[in-house]
Amino acid sequence: MTGPRYTKLVASLPSTVPFVGPETQERARGQKFAARLGANENVFGPSPKAISAMQAAVPDVWMYGDPENYDLKQALAAFHGIRPENIVVGAGIDGLLGSLCRMLVSDGTPVVTSLGAYPTFNFHVAGYGGALHTVPYNGDFEDPSALVAKAHEVDASLMYFANPDNPMGTWHGADVMQEMIDNVPDGTVLCLDEAYVEFSPEGTAPAIDTDNRNVIRMRTFSKAYGMAGARVAYAIGHADLINSFNKVRNHFGMNRASQAGALAALEDQQYLAQTLSDVRAAKERIGDIVRRFGLEPIPSATNFVTVDCGKDGDYARALVGALIDQNIFVRMPFVAPQDRCIRVSAGRPQDIDLFEKALPLAMETLK
Amino acid sequence: MTGPRYTKLVASLPSTVPFVGPETQERARGQKFAARLGANENVFGPSPKAISAMQAAVPDVWMYGDPENYDLKQALAAFHGIRPENIVVGAGIDGLLGSLCRMLVSDGTPVVTSLGAYPTFNFHVAGYGGALHTVPYNGDFEDPSALVAKAHEVDASLMYFANPDNPMGTWHGADVMQEMIDNVPDGTVLCLDEAYVEFSPEGTAPAIDTDNRNVIRMRTFSKAYGMAGARVAYAIGHADLINSFNKVRNHFGMNRASQAGALAALEDQQYLAQTLSDVRAAKERIGDIVRRFGLEPIPSATNFVTVDCGKDGDYARALVGALIDQNIFVRMPFVAPQDRCIRVSAGRPQDIDLFEKALPLAMETLK
Repeated sequence: MTGPRYTKLVASLPSTVPFVGPETQERARGQKFAARLGANENVFGPSPKAISAMQAAVPDVWMYGDPENYDLKQALAAFHGIRPENIVVGAGIDGLLGSLCRMLVSDGTPVVTSLGAYPTFNFHVAGYGGALHTVPYNGDFEDPSALVAKAHEVDASLMYFANPDNPMGTWHGADVMQEMIDNVPDGTVLCLDEAYVEFSPEGTAPAIDTDNRNVIRMRTFSKAYGMAGARVAYAIGHADLINSFNKVRNHFGMNRASQAGALAALEDQQYLAQTLSDVRAAKERIGDIVRRFGLEPIPSATNFVTVDCGKDGDYARALVGALIDQNIFVRMPFVAPQDRCIRVSAGRPQDIDLFEKALPLAMETLK
Repeated sequence: MTGPRYTKLVASLPSTVPFVGPETQERARGQKFAARLGANENVFGPSPKAISAMQAAVPDVWMYGDPENYDLKQALAAFHGIRPENIVVGAGIDGLLGSLCRMLVSDGTPVVTSLGAYPTFNFHVAGYGGALHTVPYNGDFEDPSALVAKAHEVDASLMYFANPDNPMGTWHGADVMQEMIDNVPDGTVLCLDEAYVEFSPEGTAPAIDTDNRNVIRMRTFSKAYGMAGARVAYAIGHADLINSFNKVRNHFGMNRASQAGALAALEDQQYLAQTLSDVRAAKERIGDIVRRFGLEPIPSATNFVTVDCGKDGDYARALVGALIDQNIFVRMPFVAPQDRCIRVSAGRPQDIDLFEKALPLAMETLK
C-alpha cells in the first residue's frame, strides 16, 4: 500500500508543535499548576461584561457565527477610526499569521524575522515552504534597521516584527517604528504584531495608515482583553490586502459567542484600564521579587516580565524546570543569548505570592 | 509601488465565499429572518448540559484551550472504541477539510468529488491548487462506483464523499460504503464526510477501521449536537495520517469553552436521542406540507428535507427568493438537475409553522 501521497512540502515538514501546552505538562506531572504564568495569558480575565455577553450567546451557538464578522468589524473600525474593509477578523493572531503566510509565501520565498522571535510565525513560514532569514537581537531588542536591511538583501516578500516584543518584553517607540515602516522595501509586507500593544506606554504604536500596502498590523483579544481561549484577533491593513484573506480564510470559522464577547470587551474600556493597572502592579512586584534574589527584570511593555538570570541558558532552563517542579508554570526564550532569561506573566496577587514563595526554593535546588 | 507579492496560486484565486451568510442577507434586507432554515443548523440547539458546561467555562477563557484536546479525544476514543491517536479535533469540518487539502493537494493534484457536492471542499481544493474532477449525481444520489472509477482514471490523491449527502439528503447503506472503501485506489485518500450521520438510519455508517490508511472520516458537533457556532469537529483515521495534521494545524486554535461543551454534549446521548426524534418529526411535517402544495420531499437521512419542486432551476431559485421575501431563510442545490430543488432544515414547531404559512404565499407570487 502506498498510503496517502502527501505534498512534497508537507512530507518534508517535521511533526512539531510551536509550544507544548501547560495541560500537557500537567498530565505528564500528574499535577495541576498552582500558578499559570508561562503563556502570557491574562490571569485577570475578560471584562465581566464580556463574560456575560459570551454566556448569553452560548444558547445561540446552534447558529454559525456571522462569516463577515460585521458587528465586530464595525465596532473595531469606529474604535480605530478606520473603515471595516481595512479589518479582517480571525481565530487568533496565530490563525491570521497562517493565512498571511499562505498568501505571500510559497516554495523558497524569502522571509525575514528576528532570531528567537515568535516561533509560531516560523512554523507557518516553514509550513508554506518559505526560506526564513533571521537577524539577531540587538541587546534585548529586536533590531528594526538590521531587519529592513536583511529584507532588502534577500528581497523578502514578508517580514515579521513584534512591538512590544515577545519573548523579551522590550519595545520601540512610534518614531522608530514609523522609520521602519517608511523603509520597508517595495514588494515586502511588514507584519507588525501588536498583540501586547495595549500594555505599552503611549507613543508606542505608530499611526495606522490603511493606504500603506506594505504593512499589516495584528491585534488580539487574547492578551489585554483576557480572552485567549475565545480565539478572536484581527488584522488591519490596506483594503486590497485585507480582502485577499477572503481567498483563503475559513469563512465560517469564528465562534459565535466569542464574536459577542469581543464586541462587549471592546466596549468596556474601563475594565481594560483596570487590567492595565493590575498588570502594571504585578510586573512591579515581579521585578521587586526577582531583584531580591539577585536576578534582573528587563523593562517590559507587555503583560510579562522577562528576567535576566545573569548566567547561561543551561541555568535558565534549569530554573524554569525547578519552578515547574514547584508547580509554577513559566517559560523562557529559546535562543541564546536571550535564553539566559526566564519569562513570567503578570498574575493576580495570589499568583505572584506563589511565585514569590517558589522562586527561592527553585533557586536553592540549583545550587 | 509593487505592493504585496502574492503567491502565484493566491493571485489566481477569486475572492469568493463558499456561502453567503444569513446575517449578510438580513443586513441587505434590513430585516431579521423569522425562521432560519437554510444552513442546516440544528434549531433544537445544544444539550442543556453542554450549554451549562460552556457557560461555566467562559470565565476561564483567559486561558488558551488545551492544544492537544486531550479530554475530548479521550472521550471520543472511548465513544467510538478507537484510540485517541486516531482522532484529530479541529474548529469545524471546514477547518479540517482545509488542513486535509493542504496536506494532500498542491499544484495540479487530481481530486475527485461529485458535481454539486459541498462547495467548501471545492474552495479548499482550489485554494491549494488542485485539479477538481467531478462526477454527476446518479439521480439524487452521489455515485460511489463512478467516483471510484474517476479516482482511478485521474489518479486522484484525494476524493470526497458525503454520506448522508448534502445538499440532497440522500444516503447509501454501510454495505455500499464498505464496497466503496474497499475499492479506493491505492494512493488515494477517501474523505468520508459524515457530518449528518447521527441523523441516518442504523446501518448507514460502515465500521470504523483505523488501520486503513486510505480513509479519513469527518464528524462534527455542528449538526446533531447543535453546536455549529461553537466550532468543534473531528476526523478519524490512521494514526500516521492523523498525526500529520500536527504539521499544519493551528495548535492553539480551539475555543476553550467549546472544548468543554463538546465533551458535555457527547456525554448527553439522551438529549441527542430527543433531538433526533424532534428532527424526524420536523422532517415529516415538512414533507406533509410540501406535498400539500404539490411539491415532492426527497427521502432524507439528515436534518433537512430537499424538496423537488418539479420544475427547473429558475423556478426553484425564484421560490427560494420568494421564501426569503417571506422572511424564511432557505437555500438550494447549486447545480442542475439538483437545482430543481429547495432545501429546508428541520426546525422547531414554531419554525415549521412559519414555513407552512410562507410557502403558499411564496408560491403564489410565482404564478
